[in-house]
Amino acid sequence: MKIGFIGLGIMGLPMAQNLAKGGHEVIVPERASLSAESRAAFQVVADGTAVAKAAEIIILMVPDTPDVERVLFGENGVAAGLSKGKLVIDMSSISPTATKDFAAKVNALGADYIDAPVSGGEVGAKNAALTIMIGASQAAFDRALPLFQLMGKNITLVGENGAGQVTKVANQIIVALNIEAVSEALVFASKAGADPAKVRAALMGGFANSRILEVHAERMINRTFNPGFRIELHQKDLNLALQSAKELGVALPNTASAQQLFSACAAMGGKGWDHSGLIQALEKLADHKIG
Amino acid sequence: MKIGFIGLGIMGLPMAQNLAKGGHEVIVPERASLSAESRAAFQVVADGTAVAKAAEIIILMVPDTPDVERVLFGENGVAAGLSKGKLVIDMSSISPTATKDFAAKVNALGADYIDAPVSGGEVGAKNAALTIMIGASQAAFDRALPLFQLMGKNITLVGENGAGQVTKVANQIIVALNIEAVSEALVFASKAGADPAKVRAALMGGFANSRILEVHAERMINRTFNPGFRIELHQKDLNLALQSAKELGVALPNTASAQQLFSACAAMGGKGWDHSGLIQALEKLADHKIG
Repeated sequence: MKIGFIGLGIMGLPMAQNLAKGGHEVIVPERASLSAESRAAFQVVADGTAVAKAAEIIILMVPDTPDVERVLFGENGVAAGLSKGKLVIDMSSISPTATKDFAAKVNALGADYIDAPVSGGEVGAKNAALTIMIGASQAAFDRALPLFQLMGKNITLVGENGAGQVTKVANQIIVALNIEAVSEALVFASKAGADPAKVRAALMGGFANSRILEVHAERMINRTFNPGFRIELHQKDLNLALQSAKELGVALPNTASAQQLFSACAAMGGKGWDHSGLIQALEKLADHKIG
Repeated sequence: MKIGFIGLGIMGLPMAQNLAKGGHEVIVPERASLSAESRAAFQVVADGTAVAKAAEIIILMVPDTPDVERVLFGENGVAAGLSKGKLVIDMSSISPTATKDFAAKVNALGADYIDAPVSGGEVGAKNAALTIMIGASQAAFDRALPLFQLMGKNITLVGENGAGQVTKVANQIIVALNIEAVSEALVFASKAGADPAKVRAALMGGFANSRILEVHAERMINRTFNPGFRIELHQKDLNLALQSAKELGVALPNTASAQQLFSACAAMGGKGWDHSGLIQALEKLADHKIG
């Protein structure tokens, strides 16, 4: 199948490569930054409009809401190349409410729209093991599923357009707050004189266990704060959460607090740290390092 | 071995029964409330002093710090019956700093002291599957290990006296904050129009997964808030966390926030709800129920 792919970044490049490995013809827009490897693996056309004209399904993987808007509806954008029966899949992590607007505009051109943000990071993208959270009609989902299966493992249709982005926001809320939870517990325990590595081991058998205690607590104890997932990206995601929550009329007190601690990390020069580095804001408040 | 056991409550009774099943002679103090079953299974003596005189190892499983202090050092208490070579094991969940004082006083009588709080609840107590977090010398730990193995499964020596209680506080911080995290995520997702059961399913494959997402999120979605673990008990534990943190000079912003939400639940008549009922405070703030 001819698949358009816009956004060959750290995540997008391996995702597009996995689609090409799966036998699809991947069409990308011209960029000065395209590597020789990408030029060899993908078909390069002029711009987003040309991608949408040439492809049946157009996948987007770009940083933020304004980027999706520009790629779709900006000059030489995807929308100008869409026609009846085409399908746009936005796999970026962006605003749930903007997503509903984008879907309506794409639908008005006769094309279908799926929001399908992912989690699992660069490693998940390379290993085709991403978790994919999907907002779509059942028919659009069924059409896209073979492509999702080339990129991910946990693939869930959550609901109609917007539901994928809502789920991704929920994911980022929990991940941030579980990191904050483990940070409070380990700073407390360490300042009380306990060995944080032994505390972590004792807690892993019980209700305190989590993927964050397994993975991120170890980074905190070993002081390995190279990403992983950068604090500045998690700040973007919590900003989406807090903005959407304000629009919806939902109070997220601990998400707001975690965002403040990420801001404190950024002030300490840590916007490029892995998000497990949040613990360093609490360590600073306690004048104590756990490791 | 002759084992004293003080505190035959919801947790203590099955723990003492498991020790008796393991072949030990369990000695308990007289109480008007003792059941005929307990009178048949255990040896009943006059009071805590008599228990300590008759037993080699004396286990405490009582509600709070003042209860441990009274049982040990109050009238007819355990301390008056202690002598060189005996061992006190406090399996209650109490203050880490008070624990160090109690241990020092017991040591001054020539006896050894272990703090060994547990998690896993009534089910874990009955099935001898408790997680046991231990503060003790290596020698005292080795002596008590066969008893712990009759009551629990994940048995970790974390450090010297106090370290067990510190670890239990850390556990309760993480459990409360992971419940709060899942609550924020599900209220957000539900008010945004997504089905919380599908959101939970989508998140379980990724970094947001936790024992709380597996167990407590299901209670939130199914609206089954019968305990489990009562909010008023978790309030007690977070109070320990916040008091100890103040003494230590540690800031626990999200623990403080979760404690406020538990207070809101109590104001709604929910001090007897399972702690997953915390979500109902956030639902009230959002004027929205997820199920």
